[in-house]
Amino acid sequence: LSSDPLARFRDRFALPDGVIYLDGNSLGALPKSTPARIAEVIEREWGRDLITSWNKHGWIDLSQRVGDKIARLVGAGPGEVMVADSTSVNLFKLLAAALRLRPGRCILLSERGNFPTDLYVAEGLVELLGQSHELRLVEPEEIPGAIDDGVAVVFLTQVDYRTGRLHDLAEITARAHQAGALMLWDLAHSAGALPVDLRGAGAEFAVGCGYKYLNGGPGAPAFLYLRGDLQESIKTPLTGWLGHAAPFAFETAYRPAPGIGRGRVGTPPILSLAALEIGVDLMLEADMAEIRRASIALTEQVIAAVETRCPELRLVSPRDPARRGSQVSFAHPEGYAIVQALIARGVIGDFRAPDILRFGIAPLYVRPKDIDAAVAHLRAVLDGREWDRPEFRTHAAVT
Amino acid sequence: LSSDPLARFRDRFALPDGVIYLDGNSLGALPKSTPARIAEVIEREWGRDLITSWNKHGWIDLSQRVGDKIARLVGAGPGEVMVADSTSVNLFKLLAAALRLRPGRCILLSERGNFPTDLYVAEGLVELLGQSHELRLVEPEEIPGAIDDGVAVVFLTQVDYRTGRLHDLAEITARAHQAGALMLWDLAHSAGALPVDLRGAGAEFAVGCGYKYLNGGPGAPAFLYLRGDLQESIKTPLTGWLGHAAPFAFETAYRPAPGIGRGRVGTPPILSLAALEIGVDLMLEADMAEIRRASIALTEQVIAAVETRCPELRLVSPRDPARRGSQVSFAHPEGYAIVQALIARGVIGDFRAPDILRFGIAPLYVRPKDIDAAVAHLRAVLDGREWDRPEFRTHAAVT
Repeated sequence: LSSDPLARFRDRFALPDGVIYLDGNSLGALPKSTPARIAEVIEREWGRDLITSWNKHGWIDLSQRVGDKIARLVGAGPGEVMVADSTSVNLFKLLAAALRLRPGRCILLSERGNFPTDLYVAEGLVELLGQSHELRLVEPEEIPGAIDDGVAVVFLTQVDYRTGRLHDLAEITARAHQAGALMLWDLAHSAGALPVDLRGAGAEFAVGCGYKYLNGGPGAPAFLYLRGDLQESIKTPLTGWLGHAAPFAFETAYRPAPGIGRGRVGTPPILSLAALEIGVDLMLEADMAEIRRASIALTEQVIAAVETRCPELRLVSPRDPARRGSQVSFAHPEGYAIVQALIARGVIGDFRAPDILRFGIAPLYVRPKDIDAAVAHLRAVLDGREWDRPEFRTHAAVT
Repeated sequence: LSSDPLARFRDRFALPDGVIYLDGNSLGALPKSTPARIAEVIEREWGRDLITSWNKHGWIDLSQRVGDKIARLVGAGPGEVMVADSTSVNLFKLLAAALRLRPGRCILLSERGNFPTDLYVAEGLVELLGQSHELRLVEPEEIPGAIDDGVAVVFLTQVDYRTGRLHDLAEITARAHQAGALMLWDLAHSAGALPVDLRGAGAEFAVGCGYKYLNGGPGAPAFLYLRGDLQESIKTPLTGWLGHAAPFAFETAYRPAPGIGRGRVGTPPILSLAALEIGVDLMLEADMAEIRRASIALTEQVIAAVETRCPELRLVSPRDPARRGSQVSFAHPEGYAIVQALIARGVIGDFRAPDILRFGIAPLYVRPKDIDAAVAHLRAVLDGREWDRPEFRTHAAVT
């Protein structure tokens, strides 16, 4: 028992029998306490107390309250994190804010393999600004050398969504600062998966996702982090009424709310936001160092078992656990169909183009025996050529 | 019975006993079928089918499906409306898109009394664009004369949030087009409250709110309308992965999805979106012309009763029902405290600074006898000077 200090968490999730869920990095599992809480929000708060719930049940403060909780998971302080919008929209706000802080510099630097939405958002911003700025994309190993005095902001996703490769957050942040650039981290695959220390690194900005390792539910709102000392000098271009200093004074001109309040735009989706709080609360009961230890042990187990039993698959995640997030990915030419065949057997991972099988490890509900069973299923899929069925080769809308 | 064809809808909402709810224009009431549907989305779709629900339960198409339903309420066609983000964020997308379609024009025209978030969003956009554009604000009666050949886009909220004054959507749109300007309508207080004919008027753009008359729940996602023939020539600056032509191809460069798909940015909040669908479905069962007839009868009743029994209040809504949305507003120096005293009696309206008492009329659940009772309570509050208690004079966070 002492060898698995996270075992007690497994029972807090409503995972169906017969399913081995290795896709918590796409959509976290359902905490058992979520349905009752959402029923309460719907029936008691919305249904019975109606509009008065904005005050009576604290809806107006919910984004900030959940933000303060997430802050504890990413090494930020109270008042430095706000829940709002989607990761993409938050990235737009912060990239634009960053450019304003470095008016003499015109480069937004990232890596070519960053999660596409991050690149699309930067591209959209550059286009809106009339090409006065440049989106510069390099290979990951070229990043340190590419941060020069023309770079306004470096924006990277800490954990690569395909391979799970982990950037050294402190080191790259220091390198950016050395060159006078600002640093923005996308923590989509980090928050809730491994210890993050934004303040320790001194990063200015971060965004992250509520529906992966935070178990906030499908499309849960995202979060943004704005380093405390910078907040008063920042104004994002998405200036909506809930980011105003006095939303209910209905003034004609915008005055940003003090602090992190300016990170909000419109009215937050309360049902989805309340579900996110349940996921975050559950995560806060665990110890992040413990989660990381379990995550490393489990990913090491995946690698050893697959390499021993399924050598047809080629490891594409870093072999060094210190350079790997909480997932393991392999390449195989029939990757898509193999993932579908595994799902048919109840082993849920996912596929990323062109040929990557991706297995997310959420230590709160993935156990060593799940890994053993999953790899046995994988061996059986390969032995039986189960992937070679028409129904597994037809690509669905969402892969 | 035939005199109240909407009576059967009243029982479809879970309104608490003893409450007269006249704030459906801030937060619509809870449809009785919402809790079970959301429990199903949480427990069966998220909990049991997990990530596979994006395909299996059509989550990936949900924004578009609900958009197509809302389209029927606002005179738009299939594929012209998308549910996404908040009203503020959608307005940002469309204003930016409008400016790109009129590169030689630099004025964004609106009225000074537009809902503040609309003005803040335009202000934020103008500032981001380096003041190459101008936000010009005039009084409502000055709008037609202010639309000249320097105006790129006119953006107005059809129903004034304080007074309920209703703009002539067709007439102002025609005037904008006559001057070569584009037209963007904010339908926050129109959708579900009165018949709207976007295509009939030829308006290019619209945004609207899911949590008011559409009964989608607190902070329900908003919608945007993009006139069909323009869609292929429009690219919004918020270019996120779900607005990409092939989100799961994970391409490095952005290619907008065909049609209205490009109106999406990030992953939508599925719980809140599913609740919105229930509200919209319920609305679609009713006849919008019937709703409008009932709305006019009820608002006429409010005006007659208040003016007869409570002459201390001054009507600030238009007296002509053709120029009024589905709300009635009055001014009184003690407006805030009177609204609080009414809420204490179970009559829920709201207050808008500086002195406006606002009563929203949602004909699906507000009945003639509710109006009689509400006005009797108002008379009692005034007679007893109930508003003059310290607890009613302390402003809450949300008013």
